[in-house]
Amino acid sequence: MKGHDIIIVGAGIIGMSSAYHLQKNNPNKKILVIDKETGAGQGNTAKAAGMFRNTFSSRTSQILSDTSINFYSHLQNEMNYDIRLIKTGYLWLLSKRQLDEYSPTIKKMMKHGIEIKILKKDELKKIPKLNLELNKNREETKYLGLENIHKGLLGTKCGELDQSELVKFYKEEFEKWGGETHFNTKVHGFIITPKNEFGVAPFVWQNPKINGVTTENGEVYGDKIVLATGAYSHELLNPIGIDSHSRPKKRQLFQLQGSNLEELLYVKGFNEEGILPFTILPKSGVYVKPDETGKGFWTGCADDLGRPFSLDVTPEKSFYEFNIRPILTKYLPQFENARIVNKLAGLYACNTIDGNPYVFEKYGLIVISGCSGSGIMKADAIGRIVDALYRRKGEAELYGNVKFRVSDLGIEKRNVENEEFMI
Amino acid sequence: MKGHDIIIVGAGIIGMSSAYHLQKNNPNKKILVIDKETGAGQGNTAKAAGMFRNTFSSRTSQILSDTSINFYSHLQNEMNYDIRLIKTGYLWLLSKRQLDEYSPTIKKMMKHGIEIKILKKDELKKIPKLNLELNKNREETKYLGLENIHKGLLGTKCGELDQSELVKFYKEEFEKWGGETHFNTKVHGFIITPKNEFGVAPFVWQNPKINGVTTENGEVYGDKIVLATGAYSHELLNPIGIDSHSRPKKRQLFQLQGSNLEELLYVKGFNEEGILPFTILPKSGVYVKPDETGKGFWTGCADDLGRPFSLDVTPEKSFYEFNIRPILTKYLPQFENARIVNKLAGLYACNTIDGNPYVFEKYGLIVISGCSGSGIMKADAIGRIVDALYRRKGEAELYGNVKFRVSDLGIEKRNVENEEFMI
Repeated sequence: MKGHDIIIVGAGIIGMSSAYHLQKNNPNKKILVIDKETGAGQGNTAKAAGMFRNTFSSRTSQILSDTSINFYSHLQNEMNYDIRLIKTGYLWLLSKRQLDEYSPTIKKMMKHGIEIKILKKDELKKIPKLNLELNKNREETKYLGLENIHKGLLGTKCGELDQSELVKFYKEEFEKWGGETHFNTKVHGFIITPKNEFGVAPFVWQNPKINGVTTENGEVYGDKIVLATGAYSHELLNPIGIDSHSRPKKRQLFQLQGSNLEELLYVKGFNEEGILPFTILPKSGVYVKPDETGKGFWTGCADDLGRPFSLDVTPEKSFYEFNIRPILTKYLPQFENARIVNKLAGLYACNTIDGNPYVFEKYGLIVISGCSGSGIMKADAIGRIVDALYRRKGEAELYGNVKFRVSDLGIEKRNVENEEFMI
Repeated sequence: MKGHDIIIVGAGIIGMSSAYHLQKNNPNKKILVIDKETGAGQGNTAKAAGMFRNTFSSRTSQILSDTSINFYSHLQNEMNYDIRLIKTGYLWLLSKRQLDEYSPTIKKMMKHGIEIKILKKDELKKIPKLNLELNKNREETKYLGLENIHKGLLGTKCGELDQSELVKFYKEEFEKWGGETHFNTKVHGFIITPKNEFGVAPFVWQNPKINGVTTENGEVYGDKIVLATGAYSHELLNPIGIDSHSRPKKRQLFQLQGSNLEELLYVKGFNEEGILPFTILPKSGVYVKPDETGKGFWTGCADDLGRPFSLDVTPEKSFYEFNIRPILTKYLPQFENARIVNKLAGLYACNTIDGNPYVFEKYGLIVISGCSGSGIMKADAIGRIVDALYRRKGEAELYGNVKFRVSDLGIEKRNVENEEFMI
């Protein structure tokens, strides 16, 4: 395994999108993707909800997601590549207080042409048994700090796709263009040159550069290395003293089924499919994602304080019971008798500074990190930006001829607004 | 140990400056400082070079250091508190290439009134045996990538102080105002309330808050906790999932003595003291710091790639031999026969995003981090900013009535330029 032009570490959605765009735009380069899993998209990509939205507050996240969604729609509709994309929408159910708080953000989104609608209570009443007004005198309402639902915010250019099909597309096309993949190969570290005879770190006056990786199957050299290992980035970067600019945090998903859920699944009036949008409740970001196959829902919520930065991916049933269920059942009583049929936990690569991805280069290494749970919905744009950085282009051309300044996602000349609309 | 208004974890220079300003401005509050060491300033503060400068490229670092230096000078000169402050200057010896590269930064510094002078070769010739021009044909010159010295950049409002005396000042005054200290007490973690009966992390709907710490000597509760543990911040923050926004990196100092060093120590024409300024060579940031007591010098240099993020503080003689010595002796041959008489290693709390400190609040916890090797020279300003944040003031008043917007050092509304002038 020698003499590659580019080595990409990580075959998740970000690594494979990067591989595809790099190979397509540099057809004469020998590109290799290495991953510890048995195939592409088998790590945290497989554990994602597969949702997409363009409803972000920062212009950067808007552009990255919107152009990626356009490309995915193009794949689905014009190229007839079935990634099971449906635009079922994102529905935020907001209290009066939340609406007031988010109002400037919503106005800014509208100004930038993000497709959103404000829904009044009448329209929300289409959702069977949804408790718009909670009994204020009930002990639980106070205990849980629940608020009445005042309005809905519906993002219509949002929905879901099958990320395994999307990864497959990128992998197949990458290989068609001549790209190579090595799976079942864990990368242990980086090779830094020039080497010195003492076998220690390079001397400070040597102008060192990263140009290879050590793996369980030997050393692999490449002129340029791309690190796309998401939440695991720090494991390879800490030993050489480069900051991953992301921290790993467990995020859990619970699949629920129950006899009362079907009436909630098929709701007309929000989208063409006649199913409930991905719906976010007005407390703690608890959400439900329709699951047509299972005739039920997936649910989850983000926890912040007290959830450690760690690589633990054990799902906890108690997290559903104590954190999600109390809130969920108060607004949507159909979940009272629902049972967990499946649970899984993946890792977010949290960017805790501004909530936007990082794409930067240091010592010949291109690092992509901090996608913070919106990697799938931004993957196409990020792949194009990685390619532009490789080719020393100041601007990347995103899908639909949208220009994006590469250094905006970097470190020294970083230029992004703080993302306020995280889930 | 119960019922404090403020608990400060960490009695280094940053923690003690914060303690002093908080207690002085909130005389009725019960404030406790806790530290694992036997006294104040015994951790990484004790392992610092004790240098100060206002020669930064970012306006933020300029203001933080300049006002702090003014306060330290006031202590030394008007309050007759001897912190052994001397303004011996910082002297960067620059190649033509470096001068061209830094030229915009230098112009910006001058525009902001930072006290700097450009020195021509004639003036640099006052330094005995300094090799301004290296023999280009020598193997070593090429091998080490050394350049000729073209100009000098002298920062005159720069110098050194005894940080142990400065820490002592803050501690004594803090105690005079009624503050309490507990040493030999390692903090193990944070207490998050409300507690729940299951003994696990707080539920997502509980609006949790940090209001205490667990220590080896028991629990301590406080309305507000201030974390000033520098390079160790992540050890307490990772388990509760708050980003420390800093990474620890070893930085080493070597004390050198030798019969030829005295002629280099006493050099007239750069400052009133008639000693060589703190001098930075034009390669890899190798510097020498005059050591009058030892009639020699301290030396060091920053290494980046290959130096891991870790809490290791073992000094390595080989680091001097292979990294520093080859460069040092080429420019200043007096070091040929110098020997190491002492070596020490401390930890930088690296901010790898923009190089400026962080002061932010999350869940009732105020975190100070990322001081990146310029903590002592900015400590007074940072203490005042911490106090302003505690008192919910939008602006802090730094020494000399200089106003500073507190949120500029925070996360959401962070407003700093990238610092380009790191050593």
